[in-house]
Amino acid sequence: MTNPRADRVRDVAKLAARSARNRRRQFLAEGPQAVREALRLDAERRAEGSSAVVLEVYASPECLRRYPEIAALAEQTGRLRLADDQVLAAMADTVSPQGVLAVCTMLDVPLESVLAAGTRLVAVMCRVQDPGNAGTILRAADSAGADAVVLTAGSVDIYNPKAVRSTAGSLFHVPVVLGADPAQLAADLRGAGVAVLAADGGGRLDLDELQDESAARRMLGESSAEHDGGSVACRLEDPTAWLFGNEAQGLGEEEKALADETVAVPLYGQAESLNVGTAATVCLYASARSQRRGAGSTTG
Amino acid sequence: MTNPRADRVRDVAKLAARSARNRRRQFLAEGPQAVREALRLDAERRAEGSSAVVLEVYASPECLRRYPEIAALAEQTGRLRLADDQVLAAMADTVSPQGVLAVCTMLDVPLESVLAAGTRLVAVMCRVQDPGNAGTILRAADSAGADAVVLTAGSVDIYNPKAVRSTAGSLFHVPVVLGADPAQLAADLRGAGVAVLAADGGGRLDLDELQDESAARRMLGESSAEHDGGSVACRLEDPTAWLFGNEAQGLGEEEKALADETVAVPLYGQAESLNVGTAATVCLYASARSQRRGAGSTTG
Repeated sequence: MTNPRADRVRDVAKLAARSARNRRRQFLAEGPQAVREALRLDAERRAEGSSAVVLEVYASPECLRRYPEIAALAEQTGRLRLADDQVLAAMADTVSPQGVLAVCTMLDVPLESVLAAGTRLVAVMCRVQDPGNAGTILRAADSAGADAVVLTAGSVDIYNPKAVRSTAGSLFHVPVVLGADPAQLAADLRGAGVAVLAADGGGRLDLDELQDESAARRMLGESSAEHDGGSVACRLEDPTAWLFGNEAQGLGEEEKALADETVAVPLYGQAESLNVGTAATVCLYASARSQRRGAGSTTG
Repeated sequence: MTNPRADRVRDVAKLAARSARNRRRQFLAEGPQAVREALRLDAERRAEGSSAVVLEVYASPECLRRYPEIAALAEQTGRLRLADDQVLAAMADTVSPQGVLAVCTMLDVPLESVLAAGTRLVAVMCRVQDPGNAGTILRAADSAGADAVVLTAGSVDIYNPKAVRSTAGSLFHVPVVLGADPAQLAADLRGAGVAVLAADGGGRLDLDELQDESAARRMLGESSAEHDGGSVACRLEDPTAWLFGNEAQGLGEEEKALADETVAVPLYGQAESLNVGTAATVCLYASARSQRRGAGSTTG
């Protein structure tokens, strides 16, 4: 394809708008990292007999030479079309999609499908507005091995091109649930045995104390932490969903009231607060560490 | 001030450019949070008889009514001028500086002044390029109680308006060292008894294992961790400087070679890597926690 004004090019470019994405249930993955992860997931799904993730791939010959894995995966889909840089630029939201983009089907799943799988760690974004923050939190959740990421109603569209970019491919790794109602979500999580913790600067519990208590249980045995007044009702090693709030306002009172506990990331310096992406990272890694470090891993 | 084309307005607006900032050794703090933190530091410095931080404050009457603390602090400087929103918008890099901005003197200090103070935790950005990332890392370093933040030569200008905004006031909390030569820096840190750790996805040591070893030493006593092959040469509770690399390339081989150890943040999911701000947050909080949790804090 060499004509940036072709109908097909315009059709793809329309996916920059949320309305077109929602109508077609499609979104754009731009650049080698996102497209490679989309193609990998697509190959997995096809091998399972599930429906395709990648509907179309557009790539420049240079890009396919440079990334043989992308070329091989894209060829297998039978949906690869060569396009020159002008066409790619006209299709993409980024100034330069680095030679490749893919039209993908939306990936979000209902909450039930996630909870059925024995969930241990969930990240919930409550009305997070910035696409970069949403993408960063999804990427951090993937890094911490979270089983799912949930965005409540009123959150930014995770299929926004900037959000997709910020996930650095993690959108294709972690099941995502969209448009959740917070009260229903909290009830469903609790019903599945998942504790709900609200990350909140003014939280009642201190994340580092919870980590210490968890480590003490692991190293010294269950009893040690219990009889010195540890917060045994809030154990980081147990299945946990973290609520993270809006950038400007944090979590609302109603959202906090839905949680079993409110937990603060300690501030050791003079900073008044943490950016929501930073707070989410610290909380999710604290849970991952408490859940995954097997007993005796440090003491032989 | 009501004339957005006045010479003074243009002079302030010029601080959007690095060349003007460097020539005048001045930069802009925009918005209530940054200006308040600038004014607080300014008041502290004046009380100590040190030189001023805030050279000029421009604020709208509405903003001063809304933020009485800013009004009081700004009045004390004797350098407050009322300005209308048009003037403020013409001065500022942001579309809307929310009614207030301040011209500040640059704050960076020589490395010696930081090391003299018995440093425990330092964040070093090695050629970090994105102003948002640099600001986020500085804010995370402040949150984790770091004693200093260092940017090596070739890093983004921390006085860039976007970087200043991303610090959310932390630029006025933590001493910053600019333009450091990595080799000299590593030598100076080591000379001051500060271990140098490189945060690297392919690092030899695992951050969570280091945290476990540190927790075990704390809870079970020194000996326990030593005789089971723990990495006793790398103790998170000891004074530490973390090196964080460029967004695209990570740390270079030469930079890694300057460190005592390379340390990876574990990836528990399918993510290939962490964003540098996320990695920095996890590393700095791991150090803060190991350094600050006193012996016996959890076991009574």
